Amino acid sequence: MNILVLNCGSSSAKFQIIQTDLNMIKEGTERCLASGICEKIGAESGLVSMRATGKTGIKDKPYAMPDHRAAINAIFEWIDSGKAEIDGVNSLKDIDAVGHRILHGGEKIVKSTLIDDYVISVIEECIPLGPLHNPAQVKGIRACIDLLGPSVPQVAVFDTDFHSTMAPEAFLYPLPYDYYERLHVRRYGFHGTSHRFITGKYAETVGKAKEDVNIISAHLGNGSSITAVKNGKCIDTTMGHTPHEGLMMGTRCGDIDAAAILYIMEQDGLSVKEVDTLINKKSGLLGISGISFDMRDLEKAAFTDHNEKAKLALDMFVHRIVKYIGAYFAEMGGAEAVVFTGGIGENSPLIRGMVCSRLGCLGIDIDEDKNKGLPRGKGGEISKDGSKVKIYVLPTNEELMIARDTVSCVEAAKK
Amino acid sequence: MNILVLNCGSSSAKFQIIQTDLNMIKEGTERCLASGICEKIGAESGLVSMRATGKTGIKDKPYAMPDHRAAINAIFEWIDSGKAEIDGVNSLKDIDAVGHRILHGGEKIVKSTLIDDYVISVIEECIPLGPLHNPAQVKGIRACIDLLGPSVPQVAVFDTDFHSTMAPEAFLYPLPYDYYERLHVRRYGFHGTSHRFITGKYAETVGKAKEDVNIISAHLGNGSSITAVKNGKCIDTTMGHTPHEGLMMGTRCGDIDAAAILYIMEQDGLSVKEVDTLINKKSGLLGISGISFDMRDLEKAAFTDHNEKAKLALDMFVHRIVKYIGAYFAEMGGAEAVVFTGGIGENSPLIRGMVCSRLGCLGIDIDEDKNKGLPRGKGGEISKDGSKVKIYVLPTNEELMIARDTVSCVEAAKK
Repeated sequence: MNILVLNCGSSSAKFQIIQTDLNMIKEGTERCLASGICEKIGAESGLVSMRATGKTGIKDKPYAMPDHRAAINAIFEWIDSGKAEIDGVNSLKDIDAVGHRILHGGEKIVKSTLIDDYVISVIEECIPLGPLHNPAQVKGIRACIDLLGPSVPQVAVFDTDFHSTMAPEAFLYPLPYDYYERLHVRRYGFHGTSHRFITGKYAETVGKAKEDVNIISAHLGNGSSITAVKNGKCIDTTMGHTPHEGLMMGTRCGDIDAAAILYIMEQDGLSVKEVDTLINKKSGLLGISGISFDMRDLEKAAFTDHNEKAKLALDMFVHRIVKYIGAYFAEMGGAEAVVFTGGIGENSPLIRGMVCSRLGCLGIDIDEDKNKGLPRGKGGEISKDGSKVKIYVLPTNEELMIARDTVSCVEAAKK
Repeated sequence: MNILVLNCGSSSAKFQIIQTDLNMIKEGTERCLASGICEKIGAESGLVSMRATGKTGIKDKPYAMPDHRAAINAIFEWIDSGKAEIDGVNSLKDIDAVGHRILHGGEKIVKSTLIDDYVISVIEECIPLGPLHNPAQVKGIRACIDLLGPSVPQVAVFDTDFHSTMAPEAFLYPLPYDYYERLHVRRYGFHGTSHRFITGKYAETVGKAKEDVNIISAHLGNGSSITAVKNGKCIDTTMGHTPHEGLMMGTRCGDIDAAAILYIMEQDGLSVKEVDTLINKKSGLLGISGISFDMRDLEKAAFTDHNEKAKLALDMFVHRIVKYIGAYFAEMGGAEAVVFTGGIGENSPLIRGMVCSRLGCLGIDIDEDKNKGLPRGKGGEISKDGSKVKIYVLPTNEELMIARDTVSCVEAAKK
């Protein structure tokens, strides 16, 4: 089957076409046939980049996209153009199903599911919980239904899925209970598709059943989160009611005294919207360093240019990761491994080294030769042979996970 | 010396009279001569309770107190009345100095200091940082100066003092850096006098120098905080810019996704003041249980009456303590002991047991016989002999710490 995986953000639409079926899933022989991104949707001039695997494709081509429907249209035009050179996909007719990344289905839907009117209505209902993503994702679903017709199955895969196993003591906030019942305020957690993929990948890597996996999964990227995985299930995660909570991120503040936010609102006369922008778009690595949200820039600034604020940003970033690894180690009653993934987790030996070198007291012992020698894009173990708790780097693949779920849902519906 | 220790809250004034001097500090022979509290200051009818140690004194006597000056007046009238029966204190003339508990001196003053006009001006300047406490405490200082005269020295002891040794990576939030410089937003930490007392008391108990103490100090009461003490110094603490952050407390929510607070403000149309009241006065143990903020009520409700919400409140309370102990254990690079103090920490074997039983992976092994057998009000070790990390219960005494600081400042000024 050729699965189109679609990930609509507030002003972007990313996609991959993945060839997979039940057999290929079992054998791990799935292939990414094409990928691309539509950026600056809704802005005056949008940009599209797409290419078949191994081909040149198009890069940063201007394309007017007033909304997500127009972006989906751009992707479909390209697939259907006869010029895309996608292996085995010559027109839209070769797309067998679509898998949509969906941020939020609240507590009503968390497991991957075939999309019907009810599913769409739940995603719409949850717009207050995911005000930036859910509307874009509903538009993406509707555009696909309109353009591909009702015979092509569509599947929703939720970011919150993997975290639905948390116990109330972990997912509730100590607000009056009514805020959970009436306004649905709770820890949902995000990046679930990545943490779920990593849990499976780790099980496969060390050759054990998923149910026996006890790891701390650290997805560090522009958005970052850590998940405590006990017996293969999430028991806690750093992101909360929104993706803001937890670690320091590219532009998100993460954990902060909520009363400090109220103090800032009062002192500066900021509105809810303004302070939301402040903590989500202007804080984190960017806010402290004042120069960039990108870890590569900051590593260079800190260690080549000796920029003190950049160094401080790195120290703070690491400090908070260390604390959460300790917290989850305790909460889980010990872990067998820490697994790094995501853009930073996979590609920054510096950050991995800074984090792990502080965790000797938990039995975590990094092998700096392995850590620094790991080829870019490759996974592997980076702990010393005697390390009580192992350290792994495993590249994540949320799109593949979505494609797999799509196959599973489509096949299950056939029965 | 007879030291009056004064602790002015937003609508209360607590006091003790403590007999101490440099020699008594060294020998630990200090005595509390009297204690009391003025409650409901500013309300239509206030209440005062005060008694000399070992005497009956007065209890819940109605007394009109329009402000803190009136409350101080009530205390002084009683001392001066000739009926107080305080050992060695027959009139106000027998008060040698006053030690004031002060919430906040920002970053300008953290160490205990003799009060002069500059000190008062700094405490006033910091009213935005401590809007409930600082104004009351300034009134308390001014009343004492007026009523006792300028010849009686007054000392300010700051709640934030012990936490002033935190590194920037621990005390800064990942907001734009400007919010630290311009608005002084940072982790200050509170309960510092208690954590400092506990650090000294622990050193004394195990017979080592304070500089060699590596403990996790858990002050659990109506307000709760945990401090990581490395080499005798605070390196991190759970309370933040305000006392709201960190653990779940009697009525405070503690850690929560700040964006969830913004979501609530928008959904319910709440003002900054209203949501501040929500997270500080209506949340925590009270918010979840819906019945009480008092741990004694909740333990009874959970285990005698099988109230599920009360049980949930306890589980959440414990969950967050476990996470912070793990976080600080990692951050410190290991700890030699966990020390429980505060109303709950000293008096709830149940909570201590629930917390410690989950921490075996850190080498923490509680002896339930010792835990349950510890006499009320007494300190002691409650870990098993083989426990890698020891567990202690040590009663805190912030008033004694303030009295000691007062003596030290007064004596230093004589030199």
